[in-house]
Amino acid sequence: MSTELTRKYLNELRSIIEIKDDAAALLMMEDLHPADIAEIYNDLSIEEATYLFLLLDPENASDVLVELEEYDRETFLKSLPSELIASQFIDNMESDDAADVIGDLAEEKKQEVLLHIDDVEQAGDIVDLLSYDEDTAGGLMAKELILVNENWGVATCIREMRKQAEDLDEIYFIYVVSDENLLLGILSLKALILASASTKVKDIYNAEIRSVRTDTDSEEVARIMEKYDLIVLPVTDSIGRLMGRITIDDVVDVIRDEAEKDYQMASGISADVETTDSPARLSRARLPWLIIGLLGGIIVAAVIGHFENDIKINPEMAFFIPLIAAMAGNVGIQSSAIIVQGIASNSLGLESTGRKLMKELLVALLNGIILSGILFLYNYFISKNLALTFTVSSSLFVVIIFAAMFGTLIPLLLNRVKIDPALATGPFITTMNDIMGLFIYFLMGRLLYGIFI
Amino acid sequence: MSTELTRKYLNELRSIIEIKDDAAALLMMEDLHPADIAEIYNDLSIEEATYLFLLLDPENASDVLVELEEYDRETFLKSLPSELIASQFIDNMESDDAADVIGDLAEEKKQEVLLHIDDVEQAGDIVDLLSYDEDTAGGLMAKELILVNENWGVATCIREMRKQAEDLDEIYFIYVVSDENLLLGILSLKALILASASTKVKDIYNAEIRSVRTDTDSEEVARIMEKYDLIVLPVTDSIGRLMGRITIDDVVDVIRDEAEKDYQMASGISADVETTDSPARLSRARLPWLIIGLLGGIIVAAVIGHFENDIKINPEMAFFIPLIAAMAGNVGIQSSAIIVQGIASNSLGLESTGRKLMKELLVALLNGIILSGILFLYNYFISKNLALTFTVSSSLFVVIIFAAMFGTLIPLLLNRVKIDPALATGPFITTMNDIMGLFIYFLMGRLLYGIFI
Repeated sequence: MSTELTRKYLNELRSIIEIKDDAAALLMMEDLHPADIAEIYNDLSIEEATYLFLLLDPENASDVLVELEEYDRETFLKSLPSELIASQFIDNMESDDAADVIGDLAEEKKQEVLLHIDDVEQAGDIVDLLSYDEDTAGGLMAKELILVNENWGVATCIREMRKQAEDLDEIYFIYVVSDENLLLGILSLKALILASASTKVKDIYNAEIRSVRTDTDSEEVARIMEKYDLIVLPVTDSIGRLMGRITIDDVVDVIRDEAEKDYQMASGISADVETTDSPARLSRARLPWLIIGLLGGIIVAAVIGHFENDIKINPEMAFFIPLIAAMAGNVGIQSSAIIVQGIASNSLGLESTGRKLMKELLVALLNGIILSGILFLYNYFISKNLALTFTVSSSLFVVIIFAAMFGTLIPLLLNRVKIDPALATGPFITTMNDIMGLFIYFLMGRLLYGIFI
Repeated sequence: MSTELTRKYLNELRSIIEIKDDAAALLMMEDLHPADIAEIYNDLSIEEATYLFLLLDPENASDVLVELEEYDRETFLKSLPSELIASQFIDNMESDDAADVIGDLAEEKKQEVLLHIDDVEQAGDIVDLLSYDEDTAGGLMAKELILVNENWGVATCIREMRKQAEDLDEIYFIYVVSDENLLLGILSLKALILASASTKVKDIYNAEIRSVRTDTDSEEVARIMEKYDLIVLPVTDSIGRLMGRITIDDVVDVIRDEAEKDYQMASGISADVETTDSPARLSRARLPWLIIGLLGGIIVAAVIGHFENDIKINPEMAFFIPLIAAMAGNVGIQSSAIIVQGIASNSLGLESTGRKLMKELLVALLNGIILSGILFLYNYFISKNLALTFTVSSSLFVVIIFAAMFGTLIPLLLNRVKIDPALATGPFITTMNDIMGLFIYFLMGRLLYGIFI
């Protein structure tokens, strides 16, 4: 039941666009979900995509707009008059989507579009939603919900719900409020369907519900919905009045974004970028980390420079520089990744820092013995240089222990001072461990070469 | 409305456990959600946790069991008789949770528990679910659903739903089937509530629904639910008979696991591990990557060994070995991370390999010019060694281009031959780029030192 977007399909669509055959183009898009249409736009030129977009009926076009990548959406909206945007598209959106779309517009255009929305209540909802920070519950929530008063009977309830439901795609929960609009609980559709017509709402609703406040951080919202397996979460203001609700599909995006951000940081990419972004933007997102790496490399060069004489006398010391540096980086990143992930999924619990460090040290000890053992055997039998053999393997062992220690402590430390611990992984920790590792290596070299020669 | 698990709370609970004050312990857990209780167990000893667990009423204990980490659950269940597990816990679970819990038991215990389930229908459902691969739609789905026949009227529908709903926590959708149990569509609760009593199901249900087959891969299920913002997804067998449904909360776990797996691979951790795992297990998960790194380091040592004389004469060449190696690794990981993420979120679309490579090369060109420019200035003014200055910055430039190329091509290649492209990031690509980078560096050195001196 899902249409796979094949290259063949795309080529056919392209040739239809070229001859501007409106009917054929519409026919080809007929069975597609708005999310599919939005996906096609990635593979078309702006002109081709605009042509298709203007063929769609307003309701379908609105859904496509919501699904589009921010950058593509801006391109479309820039070319359209504000009046058209307000009357054709915003009018067909739920309040949270409308606020997202309008929020991305330039300030002047934003005002124009808002003024052109006919339904003052809808415009008011959007203005309210725009006032919240994007990364809070207020920024995630939608205003549309089904509200019933605790004093109503089931029959009144169903009558009122029929009225309210017209604006909504789907009903998942019915919220029960007091006369002052304070959130009291939820009425499940199951309870409503199972109740007799004379029952009062206050007798069948469930008062044990979780809610968040408009200023709750969006990552906290995601954590709560994920932990308690919630589909919808009501949002209240600071005195408990019901302001809106957040659905799980919006939170899935938060969860994915959060995981991607950690992954990107670990890979040394600072801003949130996509393959579809421009080369200049992609370059800007990566340069900061690369420059850190470069400066680190220059510092390392200075550190090794101090040992120039040792290298002149024993050039074989230089052969193992990359090995020591790479292992310091790898071990450090492994340790920090485990900690970053533990912090992100909250699975660290209350386990104390000391215990965590001890465990990482134990793992490092185990790995250190095995790895420097392998390296010892290799050098002992292949290079037959005793000083080198002892220097390389004993430094590797010490470096692994230090790298694991830094890898564990730095993200914990960052987290304590409220800096995103994911910063610790990636080029930052690699660079620091390179410096530390090579310093240890050359010091050990000077010491051990002194003993063996 | 959420209870924060503080250290104070935990200490209080511990002292109550010590004096075995059942009533006080129950009182302390009274307001906690099963997910909270499961979280507490992470911070308690097995004995303490078991004591608390046995205090809970069966329904609550069942929910806690479902929320526990696999490892903790196994520990509890090992000490409990099969009959108790079947009658007290499994009986209170939805079929997908029950199958997950039973699936983790040892073979013999699994059979014992299954034979002790009184409700033959439930036991049958669980046996059915156990037959599916964990990573498919069949492994994710639950059997409980509300089914109505297309020929029923709304009144019959509501009567039948009342019967079926007893086993269910919540109703989100009602599935419409033919006499042969073929899935025809869904009936939304909204449509049901808004319809008059004499309407027939076949006149108000929505036939345009997405479904997956029992053998659909779980990552594909996650992709579909995420893309189309679905809360529940029905699962059919190969001829279209309705077999079960998957809810979004189970898929959120798949999405998180998938993102974590990529992150762990990028960080050089091969198995799925948690901070709570044993040091031996943590060590085993990391060693494979470290050994790859070690072997890579040994190969690099051999490569540099070929240039021993160059180093003897110009030991300052050795200073920049870590810089070249680190930059090759960083650039390679950045490129591959973008590609891996694009593949994971499917945002690469149909954009051709050639176009992607071109774009990455453009970014590399830009970054290469800036970075080798900085390095040139540094060496020109600080080291004042012209041969070194030209060697280091021109190699850096060439290495960045090559690293970006490998970083882009290797994950694309792996993906084409159906190997997880996330393998490409992490130690694997770093090591490869180290070897390539240093080989280029020393070759350039030999060439340019020949020119300048």
